[in-house]
Amino acid sequence: MDKRESCGNSVAFKQPHGTQIEFTEQKQELSKRTANTGRRTLSHSISQSSTDSYGSVGSGSSEDESSPRDRSQKTHQGLSDFCVKNIKQAEFGRREITNAQKEMPALMVLRKGAGGEKPLAGAKVLGCTHITAHTAVLIETLSVLGAECRWAACNIFSTQNAVAAALAEGGTPVFAWKGESEEDFWWCIDRCVGAETWQPNMILDDGGDLTHWIHKKHPSLFQNIKGVVEESVTGIHRLYQMSKAGRLIVPAINVNDSVTKQKFDNLYSCKESILDGLKRTTGVMFGGKQVVVCGYGEVGKGCCAALKALGTIMYVTEVDPICALQACMDGFRVVKLIEVARQVDLVITCTGNKHVVGREHLERMKDGCILCNMGNSSSEIDLGSLQTAELRWERVRPQVDHVVWPDGKRIVLLAEGRLLNLSCSTVPSFVLSITATTQALALIELYSAPEGRYKQDVYLLPKKMDEYVANLHLPTFDAHLSEVTDEQAKYLGISKHGPFKPNYYRY
Amino acid sequence: MDKRESCGNSVAFKQPHGTQIEFTEQKQELSKRTANTGRRTLSHSISQSSTDSYGSVGSGSSEDESSPRDRSQKTHQGLSDFCVKNIKQAEFGRREITNAQKEMPALMVLRKGAGGEKPLAGAKVLGCTHITAHTAVLIETLSVLGAECRWAACNIFSTQNAVAAALAEGGTPVFAWKGESEEDFWWCIDRCVGAETWQPNMILDDGGDLTHWIHKKHPSLFQNIKGVVEESVTGIHRLYQMSKAGRLIVPAINVNDSVTKQKFDNLYSCKESILDGLKRTTGVMFGGKQVVVCGYGEVGKGCCAALKALGTIMYVTEVDPICALQACMDGFRVVKLIEVARQVDLVITCTGNKHVVGREHLERMKDGCILCNMGNSSSEIDLGSLQTAELRWERVRPQVDHVVWPDGKRIVLLAEGRLLNLSCSTVPSFVLSITATTQALALIELYSAPEGRYKQDVYLLPKKMDEYVANLHLPTFDAHLSEVTDEQAKYLGISKHGPFKPNYYRY
Amino acid sequence: MDKRESCGNSVAFKQPHGTQIEFTEQKQELSKRTANTGRRTLSHSISQSSTDSYGSVGSGSSEDESSPRDRSQKTHQGLSDFCVKNIKQAEFGRREITNAQKEMPALMVLRKGAGGEKPLAGAKVLGCTHITAHTAVLIETLSVLGAECRWAACNIFSTQNAVAAALAEGGTPVFAWKGESEEDFWWCIDRCVGAETWQPNMILDDGGDLTHWIHKKHPSLFQNIKGVVEESVTGIHRLYQMSKAGRLIVPAINVNDSVTKQKFDNLYSCKESILDGLKRTTGVMFGGKQVVVCGYGEVGKGCCAALKALGTIMYVTEVDPICALQACMDGFRVVKLIEVARQVDLVITCTGNKHVVGREHLERMKDGCILCNMGNSSSEIDLGSLQTAELRWERVRPQVDHVVWPDGKRIVLLAEGRLLNLSCSTVPSFVLSITATTQALALIELYSAPEGRYKQDVYLLPKKMDEYVANLHLPTFDAHLSEVTDEQAKYLGISKHGPFKPNYYRY
Amino acid sequence: MDKRESCGNSVAFKQPHGTQIEFTEQKQELSKRTANTGRRTLSHSISQSSTDSYGSVGSGSSEDESSPRDRSQKTHQGLSDFCVKNIKQAEFGRREITNAQKEMPALMVLRKGAGGEKPLAGAKVLGCTHITAHTAVLIETLSVLGAECRWAACNIFSTQNAVAAALAEGGTPVFAWKGESEEDFWWCIDRCVGAETWQPNMILDDGGDLTHWIHKKHPSLFQNIKGVVEESVTGIHRLYQMSKAGRLIVPAINVNDSVTKQKFDNLYSCKESILDGLKRTTGVMFGGKQVVVCGYGEVGKGCCAALKALGTIMYVTEVDPICALQACMDGFRVVKLIEVARQVDLVITCTGNKHVVGREHLERMKDGCILCNMGNSSSEIDLGSLQTAELRWERVRPQVDHVVWPDGKRIVLLAEGRLLNLSCSTVPSFVLSITATTQALALIELYSAPEGRYKQDVYLLPKKMDEYVANLHLPTFDAHLSEVTDEQAKYLGISKHGPFKPNYYRY
Repeated sequence: MDKRESCGNSVAFKQPHGTQIEFTEQKQELSKRTANTGRRTLSHSISQSSTDSYGSVGSGSSEDESSPRDRSQKTHQGLSDFCVKNIKQAEFGRREITNAQKEMPALMVLRKGAGGEKPLAGAKVLGCTHITAHTAVLIETLSVLGAECRWAACNIFSTQNAVAAALAEGGTPVFAWKGESEEDFWWCIDRCVGAETWQPNMILDDGGDLTHWIHKKHPSLFQNIKGVVEESVTGIHRLYQMSKAGRLIVPAINVNDSVTKQKFDNLYSCKESILDGLKRTTGVMFGGKQVVVCGYGEVGKGCCAALKALGTIMYVTEVDPICALQACMDGFRVVKLIEVARQVDLVITCTGNKHVVGREHLERMKDGCILCNMGNSSSEIDLGSLQTAELRWERVRPQVDHVVWPDGKRIVLLAEGRLLNLSCSTVPSFVLSITATTQALALIELYSAPEGRYKQDVYLLPKKMDEYVANLHLPTFDAHLSEVTDEQAKYLGISKHGPFKPNYYRY
Repeated sequence: MDKRESCGNSVAFKQPHGTQIEFTEQKQELSKRTANTGRRTLSHSISQSSTDSYGSVGSGSSEDESSPRDRSQKTHQGLSDFCVKNIKQAEFGRREITNAQKEMPALMVLRKGAGGEKPLAGAKVLGCTHITAHTAVLIETLSVLGAECRWAACNIFSTQNAVAAALAEGGTPVFAWKGESEEDFWWCIDRCVGAETWQPNMILDDGGDLTHWIHKKHPSLFQNIKGVVEESVTGIHRLYQMSKAGRLIVPAINVNDSVTKQKFDNLYSCKESILDGLKRTTGVMFGGKQVVVCGYGEVGKGCCAALKALGTIMYVTEVDPICALQACMDGFRVVKLIEVARQVDLVITCTGNKHVVGREHLERMKDGCILCNMGNSSSEIDLGSLQTAELRWERVRPQVDHVVWPDGKRIVLLAEGRLLNLSCSTVPSFVLSITATTQALALIELYSAPEGRYKQDVYLLPKKMDEYVANLHLPTFDAHLSEVTDEQAKYLGISKHGPFKPNYYRY
Repeated sequence: MDKRESCGNSVAFKQPHGTQIEFTEQKQELSKRTANTGRRTLSHSISQSSTDSYGSVGSGSSEDESSPRDRSQKTHQGLSDFCVKNIKQAEFGRREITNAQKEMPALMVLRKGAGGEKPLAGAKVLGCTHITAHTAVLIETLSVLGAECRWAACNIFSTQNAVAAALAEGGTPVFAWKGESEEDFWWCIDRCVGAETWQPNMILDDGGDLTHWIHKKHPSLFQNIKGVVEESVTGIHRLYQMSKAGRLIVPAINVNDSVTKQKFDNLYSCKESILDGLKRTTGVMFGGKQVVVCGYGEVGKGCCAALKALGTIMYVTEVDPICALQACMDGFRVVKLIEVARQVDLVITCTGNKHVVGREHLERMKDGCILCNMGNSSSEIDLGSLQTAELRWERVRPQVDHVVWPDGKRIVLLAEGRLLNLSCSTVPSFVLSITATTQALALIELYSAPEGRYKQDVYLLPKKMDEYVANLHLPTFDAHLSEVTDEQAKYLGISKHGPFKPNYYRY
Repeated sequence: MDKRESCGNSVAFKQPHGTQIEFTEQKQELSKRTANTGRRTLSHSISQSSTDSYGSVGSGSSEDESSPRDRSQKTHQGLSDFCVKNIKQAEFGRREITNAQKEMPALMVLRKGAGGEKPLAGAKVLGCTHITAHTAVLIETLSVLGAECRWAACNIFSTQNAVAAALAEGGTPVFAWKGESEEDFWWCIDRCVGAETWQPNMILDDGGDLTHWIHKKHPSLFQNIKGVVEESVTGIHRLYQMSKAGRLIVPAINVNDSVTKQKFDNLYSCKESILDGLKRTTGVMFGGKQVVVCGYGEVGKGCCAALKALGTIMYVTEVDPICALQACMDGFRVVKLIEVARQVDLVITCTGNKHVVGREHLERMKDGCILCNMGNSSSEIDLGSLQTAELRWERVRPQVDHVVWPDGKRIVLLAEGRLLNLSCSTVPSFVLSITATTQALALIELYSAPEGRYKQDVYLLPKKMDEYVANLHLPTFDAHLSEVTDEQAKYLGISKHGPFKPNYYRY
């Protein structure tokens, strides 16, 4: 079994799903506000992703400014076990959820498939994810499959208030609103856990904050918990560390490294969002531009393929000789960043590594050079080295800063070095659908697995379920799968119904 | 650990390396001859690959026709422990080997690296591979690294006689010539094993015939043997079966499924050889042609990428939903073969499966449709269904048959359904170099591994050695690898010198 | 000489340059307002392009609402021969112009090249174009080259008020503001012409409205005019009609059909803007989508190349067999729209033709099908057929309408069928630079041509000047041109300095 | 009208069609023989193309060696007005012609279309082209259309003897065989002209030798001749020179510069044949190779597109700034050859220019660098500079020479600098079909044009006929053309049936 953390230089993990569409400036303000509040408890352990800037559509600016915690609200059925911004927005939120359902046909098929048998009957799922129309479709799918759910937000900015209201109105206890303070954040999680009245037996986490909180505050709950499904790089990292340290006491499924995540989300989604993000922010013409992509993992491969196809001249940097050799064979010159820093028009980081672009590179870059990050860590660019007295920062547009050198040279920095695709482009619903379906199947697998199949360790989803996730998405493309005959199955030594590949198969 | 056999439908394994260049008609004759000869012993277990047609450059037709087994030859040093066609060809063969060395810089670096320490000092390697200039470079590299080698051919057609002579002249006992009978084949292997006078402690096999023979005839030798390195799909299959059955009594390394093999040989090499093979045999213009590729594994991906890039309209068939979804996202329509059989101009099989193209498809194909196989098994096309009375076969060119329907419709069958790239195109020396380097490192690893690291099982090469193989090939492309700083290594939780990725990483 | 109008089906001409960036809703309102005003004079002959929706950055909403015509303004130098929104915005406008200069290095080289000799000394240029930072760079370049200029806007929405102010402050009489009424439009042109006080001898037009007005109102001016430079499809069409009818009394240069326009703006620019426009408006994921592009002229070629590169499955419709054969060879299936209407996810028109997409196609399209126009005419889609009682239009986002069928089917219509790239994406400054440079050179050519070189006809720019325009843009790409030796020039029978190709060369 | 010769640097004209398939060594020997023969008459004016090496399939080596001129042969019908190698080969040749008919459906449609009316009734066509199965289909099509034909070969090596026999047997007086001496060459042409007994009224030439001969020897024939159709670059060059000099006394149609030739043959055909030619001769792996292509005309564009698609790193050299800018926008670095000579693995010339690669570049190239020519002129590489004492030439394979430097460096020169695609790859029948159809239509146009439409000048084929040629080839791709409605035709101001574009349209 593969239990090591994924730590490669070019892996270029991505933040999970999101429906971010518009540029957003809120973070700056909210961060400021946050900084002023004198909160302390646990703030050292809040996951980085929980405070990532994360805009959402239609977030009215004129909403009531009183804290949801101070308000008493009830659904039409008279339920009050929830905490959202404004329960009256439920109708609008319901419409959003209904629209999102169209884009997530796989989950709808799962609902239908449930029919008489409810694979999650008896499951009590505690969830902590972004709360958007798309995750709402997931949550309500879990309910249709038999689960009871309670939910909190994994990010203080990303909640779509109307959707949260619709979920609550629909009967799911949800504790989340857009613009939570850090204290609110933990308060919501704690209310969600509701340890005394309701004993969860499954956890669906995104970032690891919920898992962390239970560990710290309600460790006894783990006695009932059959497993954790975790989706984010950060959360997975925490789980592998716990596993190494022998502190992981339930099985966990690593959804982040599923083939459907790595090979689809990271490759195909980034292939498109790099173009989208760059056009939206800078309107740059690609034809003839010289571009260096740092890291040739899935994200780097996607970026390179898209940009090359649009007529750029590409360079790649790598630390891993295997990925470097792939870059060579794909027709990219593999160089050190310092070698091409002077001549390139665009620098894109996709390494998952730290300080890949440093001041020494920035010094060499030419006037007008655009710099952005598509990798996992927001520290790929050494921003600290740019926060010095002689350099002037100029915000020229949302998500676009000019860093101005004394001689007038301007480096165009996008999204302050945070993830370009999360901040400045759309995330296709196809990707959201694949991830949500994988999460649902992981929950089912852990919940219904016979005693002993999973130990206190971190697992990848069984290949057969990966294949099932893929299968559910083929109708979107009107794709017709061929069938294996009995004779062929025998010849190949496999079952007609899969899995079709050995575990080590790389796709 | 990954020990399952590779059995996917779209894996599309490939026969190993070769330097085949010219079209060859010999097989037909030899096959006929073979068929007439009343040989029996062990012929049921000869590997399929050992009789694959396999032309080689410069094989003079006017060579002495007496059997090498009947002739007594000596090297200039007076050695006679070998059996080749004509020891006098050694000088020409040496020139070929010298040329091949230029194309395999990685092995030459290994030789230099050996310097004082000889990692294979004491190793006695028994080898059974194609005997070509490129494998000669491998064999002699092993010698430079300290090994004693004895060698036989793994294929009755592929030996380059001059190269065999040069190896013998250089001091390597080699038993092989082009056009061995099946009896010769086993005689050579047996002479090579030389069980009484020379006790091997390592095996390098390609196809599994050598390993099989020792099992059958000299099982006691396994007591001294530290491990087997196997390169072919067929041989790997046999090893996994032995492992399953508990009959594998030494560790084995599966070179075939190394990332450098699967992701480089299968993907990049096939990407180029599909074009080469089709042009050489048919001169077909690709632009605007409709093509269906059966199987979207690495080989299928390579074929599709190359053909799409040259302006064909592509369809893909798949049984594995994950590969099917990749095909969709890459812009190929996923269909059943029967749906497009009428309209396509070209059918290419890359599944590794059996009878993927059957008479029902062939009936629908249009006049002039070209049919070829790039997959592993030569049974991907159901040729039996074409050997019926009403169909006429017409050989129009070497490697090109027309199968003529009563109404005049002609299907253009290439290489009689055998591997197009092995039969009708060149194999780049880059690929040969990667494979040979991997074999050398696998031998070193098995030979020098501390007691207990490897059990009686089949292993993939450790990632660190895969990375080393890749590293040795980067200078070919003048590629400059970046280095991980101490700070970055700590951040990533890895060693500065690799391995850089978790084992489950897919590249 | 080529004097026929360009009338092909797949030519897919494009509206001229623009710096449109943001989505805009103004048009609807303004159109409504316009419709209510009882204006008549000449409104039948206003060019279509002059009322195209055309957003511009930084257009404050809180500007003074009084009409510029009613206000008396003066520059710092005390000049008052201009009419702009607010002369006080000049400083901001100047900064915009300075920024734009960076993106138009070719014009800056022309300025420098002028040095002592002023090729336009004595020229009095009457101009009517969009008034943006980029055209301001052109206008002021003409001044540096020796010309006196007077300018009006060719579009009632596109003027950047601050830029107009900066031009006026800089000494150019300019008559334009954002949001002119139609009456204002002609008033500005008339003030600009200023027939009594100032006799123009050159015209630079974009859309033909200025040329038309002089014909109607000040025909005597043509006695002094040496020529007209026209850039738009519409304007060119008018000129060819005048030429045919024998009513063209000065030479004209057709800038629109220059190779630098057709092969760069139409091909490369559309290649990028189709992706940008679709992502911005719909966030659609391209991978695996089925797309039909109507028309395989330069614009269609650009759209197809970009979309194919991102993994779509493409179909092309064509009426011209030559373009159709190109599509075939490039790997696109050539179909009739009706054949694929049911299955495609996206329909893109690029024909320059009328009613290419009709109700019969729309009936067949599936739920969610996206429909947009990249061609010249806004009538490529038969919108009239969608304005029927049973269909409901729903504006879901700026530039995005859902047309809803009674059964709930939704067709996603972008930019109301107007040009997607003008309405919903950026126009690269590279394109703006090429066009402006071509205009400047065309003016110089007409102005300085010896008597008799140009007759009362429409001409393409001489190839040598096309080559010069290209040459001026090579430094952007750090491209190094090779030089023809004397020996080679003799061998080829050409001058060392060009032109390098015969006139019929197609590039 | 476009009458200038095509002389650009990157035009990269190509030699006309051919069915060359196998490597051939004959030229060397024949050239030697030729050199020894003391022939003089007119040899100074023989076209270069008439002696180009030009292999053909199935040319038996054991044929009767007596000169066809000395032998008396008769067809079954008793005709003897022909001179071929061996009339008994007619049956085999007929089979070849029948096969070729399948690949030239457009000509077969023309035959059917003829029906009652014979557009060439009364035409007496004198032809001088390669004599292959494909041209035989053309010749016999002309006969079906009503013409009487007499034919000679335009190249001393390219005649397929069996095909010539079949033509003669079929009733066409043909004078040609493979391996003519130069004297034979002119003797055949003269016999073909047969001035006294048969008065031609049309000429179909390829290379200009026939036209030249008539000028010199039978000028009076031109009184009856309605026009010349010429296909080769060389022949066109001669015609334009005659036109300039006022010596052209009949109209001529330049088939070489038709859009179907330039945009299909040069672009698409070279895109495929560069890959084919390089693989066949060197087996080089493309992935990761650095390649410089000299000249970015149609041929260069085709080569660059194909190689880039297979993963090479590309550089382009150009003298024409417009083509250079296209290369930039397409994503190629534009450099001077000298700048990259040291680092590239492959150099490909496509300029049509002279001595583009000189000794100064060759000195810098690295060991193993491959050098080949895809352009028009065989003098693109300065071979003279390589024929010096210190360099050793080594023929390593047919069409492959190593030029060896004193220090052991080897430059791999393909086809001795002659056209790679003519010498070392197949020519797709699709291309042959387009050219032959264009020739047939050009004959019909000239023959049936009303008095006065064509003057004593060189013309391009009318666009409508280009469109017709394209149309006839669409069924090959199952392409479905859309139709222009009456309303649309009116809107566009064109006829429903074309031509669809202005003459200056570039495609």
